[in-house]
Amino acid sequence: MPVFITLEGTEGVGKSTALGFMQQYLQGHHVPFISTREPGGTPLAEQIRHLLLNKSQEPVAVNAELLLLFAARAQHIEQVIKPALAAKKWVLCDRFTDATYAYQGGGRGVDNQKIALLEQLVQADLRPQLTLWLDAPVEVGLARAAKRQQLDRFEQEKASFFDKVRAIYRQRAQAEPQRFRRIDATASIEDVQAQIQQALAHWVAVHTL
Amino acid sequence: MPVFITLEGTEGVGKSTALGFMQQYLQGHHVPFISTREPGGTPLAEQIRHLLLNKSQEPVAVNAELLLLFAARAQHIEQVIKPALAAKKWVLCDRFTDATYAYQGGGRGVDNQKIALLEQLVQADLRPQLTLWLDAPVEVGLARAAKRQQLDRFEQEKASFFDKVRAIYRQRAQAEPQRFRRIDATASIEDVQAQIQQALAHWVAVHTL
Repeated sequence: MPVFITLEGTEGVGKSTALGFMQQYLQGHHVPFISTREPGGTPLAEQIRHLLLNKSQEPVAVNAELLLLFAARAQHIEQVIKPALAAKKWVLCDRFTDATYAYQGGGRGVDNQKIALLEQLVQADLRPQLTLWLDAPVEVGLARAAKRQQLDRFEQEKASFFDKVRAIYRQRAQAEPQRFRRIDATASIEDVQAQIQQALAHWVAVHTL
Repeated sequence: MPVFITLEGTEGVGKSTALGFMQQYLQGHHVPFISTREPGGTPLAEQIRHLLLNKSQEPVAVNAELLLLFAARAQHIEQVIKPALAAKKWVLCDRFTDATYAYQGGGRGVDNQKIALLEQLVQADLRPQLTLWLDAPVEVGLARAAKRQQLDRFEQEKASFFDKVRAIYRQRAQAEPQRFRRIDATASIEDVQAQIQQALAHWVAVHTL
């Protein structure tokens, strides 16, 4: 059975590097998989991502942002995630609905129930089986993210915004310890890699028998 | 009190001409108003409109279409409709949520309850007070629409799709006779104008006292 794995975390915690380790590990164990990301993952969903991340000519209404995210997710699920799982491929997804709870729920103050309602509407019973949460103090991540060429509409938020985002990730990780694996993103790169391999090993053992 | 008026109907029934008559009538009675449209009405919402109406590189998931429509609506309401009404301006809107019930509910077969749930999430208690429904047999409208340069993603649908759309408009008009005014769009242009003026006269009388 294929496994749906998501990768979560605030800015600059090293998600791209982590995704590289995950890909390497699965390849090494001959696990068929695809890598994708949210918001985005299909041509239409990437166009929606563009609307979400770029500075707009006008303030973006909180509900508009929330619905754009779930519109992109609906497209991504139908076009990419479900077909991959149906073809027995594992799915590695850089951010998913936990990010909506963290950024829109925590960061923007959107009511959790509103997010849960859209989650149900768009995903039905689709949920990740494993979520790797790369965690580091907000300052550490923001300092790394600041070195990038240009900050997007989210990266431009203040540290207090990301503190709220991180708090929700922590809350969700505590509420679902079976699904979440916290990865200490302040550790050395070798140690992060080891933590990731350890998180994947169980699933690879079970699902490649 | 300002009045929120929507204009509905399938392709080629003469909504633009009708909107012109409405504007003329309100101007003649010194009623302050704005004219806008859906999907669209703000720079971001018009970009969403573009994603919705243009042929995509991929099939558009039904949920993605539905959520894009409500994302555009959320932005339009916050940026345009609510501020206009707060400034005591009437709002004339070319298509609104009735179109979602008709096109996505009727045409695409989306569950009504799903639409009602998003309507509640995005609009809370905002509803049009008056809806002018320009009605004509589908063949009449499609023949007119076909003369346009290029058909959008919706205009390319088959007649059977628009039959379902029209049936839902009829159903909604029957269910809410206080709000809906059916305008016979097959009548002469003078007669259509007279029907529109009659529909507006009551509201102008009450709300410009």
